[in-house]
Parts: sequence; C-alpha cells; structure tokens
Amino acid sequence: MPSSAPRRVSLVSERLAHFALTLTFDRIPAAVVNRAKHLMLDAVGIALASTGFDFAHRTLSALRALSGGGEVPVIGFSERLPLRDAALLDGVLIHGLDYDDTHTEGVVHTSASHLPTVLALGAARHESGEEALAAYVAGVEAAARLGAVAKGGFHQVGFHPTGLVGAFGCALAAGKLLGLTAEQLVMAQGITLSAASGSLEFLEDGAWTKRFHPGWAAVAGITAAHLAQHGFVGARRAYEGRFGLYRSHLQERFEEKNLGLATAGLGEVWEVMQVAVKPFPACHFTHACADAAIALRERGRLDPSAIERVTALVPAEVVKTVCEPEANKKRPQNPYDAQFSIPFIVASALLRGRFSLDELAPEAIADPQILALADRVGYKVDPNSGFPRYYSGELLVETTDGRPLSHREAINRGSSERPLSEAEIVRKFHDNAGRATSPERAREIAHAMLSLEEAGDVATLARTLGGG
Amino acid sequence: MPSSAPRRVSLVSERLAHFALTLTFDRIPAAVVNRAKHLMLDAVGIALASTGFDFAHRTLSALRALSGGGEVPVIGFSERLPLRDAALLDGVLIHGLDYDDTHTEGVVHTSASHLPTVLALGAARHESGEEALAAYVAGVEAAARLGAVAKGGFHQVGFHPTGLVGAFGCALAAGKLLGLTAEQLVMAQGITLSAASGSLEFLEDGAWTKRFHPGWAAVAGITAAHLAQHGFVGARRAYEGRFGLYRSHLQERFEEKNLGLATAGLGEVWEVMQVAVKPFPACHFTHACADAAIALRERGRLDPSAIERVTALVPAEVVKTVCEPEANKKRPQNPYDAQFSIPFIVASALLRGRFSLDELAPEAIADPQILALADRVGYKVDPNSGFPRYYSGELLVETTDGRPLSHREAINRGSSERPLSEAEIVRKFHDNAGRATSPERAREIAHAMLSLEEAGDVATLARTLGGG
Repeated sequence: MPSSAPRRVSLVSERLAHFALTLTFDRIPAAVVNRAKHLMLDAVGIALASTGFDFAHRTLSALRALSGGGEVPVIGFSERLPLRDAALLDGVLIHGLDYDDTHTEGVVHTSASHLPTVLALGAARHESGEEALAAYVAGVEAAARLGAVAKGGFHQVGFHPTGLVGAFGCALAAGKLLGLTAEQLVMAQGITLSAASGSLEFLEDGAWTKRFHPGWAAVAGITAAHLAQHGFVGARRAYEGRFGLYRSHLQERFEEKNLGLATAGLGEVWEVMQVAVKPFPACHFTHACADAAIALRERGRLDPSAIERVTALVPAEVVKTVCEPEANKKRPQNPYDAQFSIPFIVASALLRGRFSLDELAPEAIADPQILALADRVGYKVDPNSGFPRYYSGELLVETTDGRPLSHREAINRGSSERPLSEAEIVRKFHDNAGRATSPERAREIAHAMLSLEEAGDVATLARTLGGG
Repeated sequence: MPSSAPRRVSLVSERLAHFALTLTFDRIPAAVVNRAKHLMLDAVGIALASTGFDFAHRTLSALRALSGGGEVPVIGFSERLPLRDAALLDGVLIHGLDYDDTHTEGVVHTSASHLPTVLALGAARHESGEEALAAYVAGVEAAARLGAVAKGGFHQVGFHPTGLVGAFGCALAAGKLLGLTAEQLVMAQGITLSAASGSLEFLEDGAWTKRFHPGWAAVAGITAAHLAQHGFVGARRAYEGRFGLYRSHLQERFEEKNLGLATAGLGEVWEVMQVAVKPFPACHFTHACADAAIALRERGRLDPSAIERVTALVPAEVVKTVCEPEANKKRPQNPYDAQFSIPFIVASALLRGRFSLDELAPEAIADPQILALADRVGYKVDPNSGFPRYYSGELLVETTDGRPLSHREAINRGSSERPLSEAEIVRKFHDNAGRATSPERAREIAHAMLSLEEAGDVATLARTLGGG
C-alpha cells in the first residue's frame, strides 16, 4: 500500500470522529435530548401509519425473501429481520409517506436514517437508551452539517442528500454504538464514501426509490462501521479529497469555502433543534394555507356550504408546484397529486378541520363534497409573501351571506422559527399510530419513546415497537 | 403516485432487460461459454490466493460479526455467510490483489462483481450451472457496455465504474436468476441507480475501498432485484433520465450520442470475448517488459550475473507511472510500489523467470539479488511505441561478454488482440490456487469450473470452492 496522504490536523472526518466519540449522553443538553426523543416519536408514528400501505408490505416481503428472516424487531410488524434489513425496512416505513422530519438547511430527512440505525443496532447489541440517544444525536449533528456544505447543490445535479449524506451520519452513529476508536471512525467515513448513494431520478416518474434512500444509508453506514472496526482501511480525506464526497458529486458546483459548515459549532450549536417536523402529510408549500383553513373553520364556525369562493394567496415561486395546472390540482388522481394541491388541501381542511393521512385515502380523494369545494378555491400571487424564508400563505373567503373572512399564516408552522410543539408532535403521533394500533398500545409506545434514556436495553423497546 | 414519464420503446433499461430475459444458455455461442468459464476460473484462482492476505481475513471477520454467519459458501474459506455477505466477500477476494480481469473499453473489472453474484445467488437458490453461466454472461455484456458509454469519463470525475456500473450488471444477472419479468428487470435497474456507488478517492491514499467496490455492486444488484421482484418501483429512465446514471455522475462530461454504446451489438457482438486477463499481478504498463525479460531469459539462457546493464524502452506516456522517480522505483517499499516499478519487475523476471504473487512477498521485495539487478535497469522513451493501442515494451541487455541482446513485445500479452490463451489462464489459476490449496484440490476446482455447464446445482460447486 502507498503511504498515506499528508496529514492535516483538521480533516472533517477527524473532527466528526472526535465529536462522535466524545459525545456522551451527559454532555447533551436536556432540551436537545427532549427534542431528539420527540423527533424519534414522530418517526415511529409515521412508520406505524406506513404499515397500512402497499409499499411497506412489498418491502417487507422482499427483505423476507432475501434474508429468510432474522432476530431484530422492526417497527409495526411482528416479524424480525437481520440487522441491516431491519434498518432498511424501518427507513422505508419512516420516509415512505414523506411525512417525516427534515433538517432544512442540510435538506436531509435525518430521523429516517438515524433512528433505524440506532434502533436496529441498539437492539442487536442490547445497548442502553442513553447510548442510542447519544449515537442518534451524533449522527444527526454530522449529517445535517454535511448536507449544509452543499448549499442545495446536490439537488441541482441529481443526488438525494437524505441517502448520500445520511450514510455518513449513520456510519458515525453505528460506529459510536460499536465503540470504534477515533481512527476507526475516520476509516468508517472513508468506507462510507464507497457505499453511499441516492438518486433524484424518482422525481421524474414517481418511482419509490426515494423511500429506499434513508434505509440504504443506514445499511451503508452500519456496514462501513463494522468493516472499519475490523481494520478495513477507508479513504481518509472522504470530504476534502480530490475525489471526495463533494468534488465527485458536486463537481464544478463545489465551493471549498463551504466546507467549514461541516463542523461549524459542533457540540455548541445543536442542529437537532433545527430539524423541522411536518404538521401535514403534504408539500411544505401548502402548510400555511392548510393551517389558515383550519383556523377559519375553528374561528368562524364556518359552514362549508356557505362558502362562495376561496382565494389562496401564495408565493409566486410556488404557484407551479401547488396551484397549476388548475384543472389537475382540482381533480387529484392519486395521493401524490393531492399532496401538491392547494385547492384539494384547502377544501379538505375547511370541510374536515384537518389534513391528515385520512385525507389522502382513495375515498377522500374522490369525495364529491371536497371536490365541489375545491372547484371554488382559486389562487392569487401573494404580494407580501415571506418566501423563501417562510412558506407563508393566506386565505380570503367570500360567503353567501356576504361576510368576508380571511386568515394569514405569515410563518408556516413546522418551520424552524415556529416549530411544532411537543404537544403537537404527540398529537401527530397518536393520529398516525391510531391508524395501525390501539390507543392503549400507542400510549405504551409513546411512553417508551419519551422515556428512552431510562431504557436499559433497546431490544426491549424495539420489541414494543414491533408488537411481536 | 404520479403517472409514468412518457414511454419510449427503446429505453436502455428496457433493451437490457429484454436481452437478459431472452438470453438462454443455448443462445450463447460455445466460444463465449468457454471464455466465460475461463474468466471465472481465473477469478476463483485469484480469490484463493487472496485468502492468504490480511485484507481477506479482516473482511471476513467484519462480515461474520455483522451477520453472525449464514448458509452460503464463500471462496477459499470453510465459513458460510448470508447471501449478500458471501457475495461481498467473494468480490473482495477476487478484486483484492488487482490481478483480476478487466473489460478494457468499459474500464470495468467484470468478473469481480458478476461471479460473486451468480455464485452466491446460484448457490442459495440451487440453480444449475447453465443458469449461472447465462446470468453471468448477461450481466457482463450489460456492464461492459454501460461502462463504455462513459468513454473513461467516470475516472475523470472520481467514480469507479467497477462498482458504479457493475451494480447494474449484477442487478440484471441476479434478476435473471430470480426469474424476473422484463418489467421487473427494468425496475431492478431503476432501484440500482439508488444503490450503486464507487469512489476513486482510494487513489489518493491507497485505501482498501477499491477492493470493496465489486462486492458492494453485487450486494446492490442482488438487493435491487429482490425488491423489484416484490413490486418495489424503480426509476424507469435509469440511464437516459435527467438525473439518470450518466447525467448525475458525469454531469457536463456526458455526451448523449454515446448512449448507443449501452446496447450496441447486444447478442451479436460478445463483450465477454473482450475481457482481458492479466498475465502478471502488476500495472498493465509493465507487462510487455516483464514478458520481454522472461523471453530473454528463456531464449538466451541468460546468466543474470553476466548482465551489465538493461535498458527498458517504454512509451513516453507511462514513464511517470512505472519508471520515475528512479530511486523509488529501484527500492519499492511495499507490494503496491513493486507493482508499478519497471526496474523491480524486470529484474525479478530476469532472475526468476516469472513475475507472480511470490515476487510481491516481503522477502522478494527485500531480495538483495533482485535489488542489485534492479539498480542496473534503466529506461528510455520508446520511439516506436504502440501506445495507447498497445502497451508495448522492449528490453536491451548489455552483457559482460559484450553480447548485446534484445527482445520486443509490440503487443502486450493480455490485451484484447493478444488474449491469454486458455492454457495460460489454467496455468495462472494453478499458480494462484497453489498458494492456498493442494494441487489435487486445485485440479478438482479447475475441473468443476471448466465443466460448469454440467453442474446441476451451483451450491455443490460453491461448496467445492469453499472447501467446507
């Protein structure tokens, strides 16, 4: 083997390794621990809801056929799978409905890869809840920063950072649980560079591969960490190198000056606190209008049959995504269409006082009442839009009795400046979990997740989540 | 889910799926089957030799720790691993010494990913030898062509096509063994786009990750094929898409006109016949001079102590790689240095009449006789070089008795125009296998590989290779 490239003290992989290694549970502020548990709870609720969908069953049957089963529990099913397959399935379940959390600046769905990593590996190794929490936080802190370096550039060239960047966070989380040395954690990141993947081509035809990415990131990270533990040698300059993550994937778009973001404020600023939880299972751009509809309904005890016309004020930049073409938006053909339709979402929220997964069911999408109201929902460009900082929105309602109503959401709920409260996250969890399990079991799961630091063995928790 | 992108009859993924699906063993010309078996034999021999090296044991112990063991035999060890881990380890063993075969135009080490795929999956499913051979040929034909589309561009931007492109061939080979429909084979390729990886950053510091790539390609392909079989939806335009393989990875370097190479001559021209087998475990650029040294020794019954001076004539373009800096080339510090040194390789071949893995052992690299002769090996730029078409080379020897000797290799052995004969491949196999096993067992393995089409169950063959 050739001699190593010249060492620098400050390689990103070395700094992230040091951070992950030294981050003990005691060093994580209580507010960060608390938020981490709520992010995990949110992810578990979505995973439970996902178990009712076709994609979940197809993934499970594929992994069952591939592995013949295993010892590690998965969320929401009584079956068990080998370590990496359990993580892969959990990732599919958490991300499968596009309802899971996002680190906005990094553009990474963080819990969807990191929770499966620490849950599956924590269960397999019988780690404590504290260890799992510390590993989760270490991984999320790293992945969020590694995503931020790209400044949105991965999306320009066709890579999905949730998969690509998430894998490095998962390698650190897995390596931390495995007890790797700092040098082994550096090697694990270097091996991950050869295993990470994530293509945005699903945007072109609605392929399911988006759902696959966070779980595959967990598989890559877990694999890399084990190889590093046994002395397999990875590339040291995984991020800075001539063919490192950024130069190979961003190519001309990589700006070296942004590399500092990969480690900025590590251990002082907590990116876990910046992870946004979605209030609705729909495109972020629709959330302000959905909340405006719910507020109008609650405030005005609005009789939907008295609504003459609704005008949504939306940022000019999002019109093409959620308002046009109008005819399509008013008659969504499938859940995916509905998630991107202002008329459908506003009408649903006005009529039902909510926009949940129920409103994406086939009966809801074909509900004549909703569709009739959607026909009366138009839009205008909002002259006072807060975009892109906030995905603002406003509804103007004309009623049959001539009463004009309006409601504005200047800052969309779920954004980092207006995060979902813990109570809202718990409510969302019960909405989602209730689709798959009894209220009693949902409460038991919520209790287990929210007291995670007290768990002596993650395997016990994993069994509770699996119900097996 | 959104509706599919507009269909074209001639998508690359559809053509490759059709080819793979319809390629029955009977349709493969006998010469192609024969060559495929010899390529496989070569790969098995290298894998057996690899079992004596540190990297093999570290990989095995990592995968054992990760999986807890499984049912599928691996090459050269009595242990068994789960399907994907067996394929991963076999890939590491075959590619680990950089001595395995290469499709030159595609710049893909083809057997290193495709043999593990058909061997592990064939064993797990108890497929016949004919089925395994047909799947191997289908995968290699696809991967070689998919690599050729890039025109070497992957190497410019930092991706290793052996991993990145190999994964698609493995998905087709695995999918064919699983009995996927054409549509499922298309989906498998689309899922592979989200799982394929391979970074060239190992070039910067000699990381072991190069060894990992073909096995990981097999893991990705096997996983994707199973998901597709159970209805998981992949991106249809895996190659042509806006964020398909080439646009996302080659970016500005992608030339659409080259996409035709992906399917050119499918089923008529056999790329298996263009896969080059390495005669020496060293950089391709050194092979002509190594053969010249062996020829001079054999022809002239040259007494090495009578050699005053040797001058290697080498193409100007390779001087920096294999001749300079002279002081370093004359004192290799490790096997990797030795593989790229004209003075060391020429001196070894003149003294020992060969250049095999034995000449990369620590004792050989420190052998004072070899090093003394290496000191007397100089070089000049060859005015008649055949580069880049052929990696030509010539040796001029001055002896103490004033007798001038020379030998020229205008076309390097192992190139597609001067392929290793089957007898040479068998000899290479026995050289390699002999490092790890008895001559009797090596003969048994060679017989099993070279009569693969008669095997009723690949599991039996796999057990023979594993010796377990």
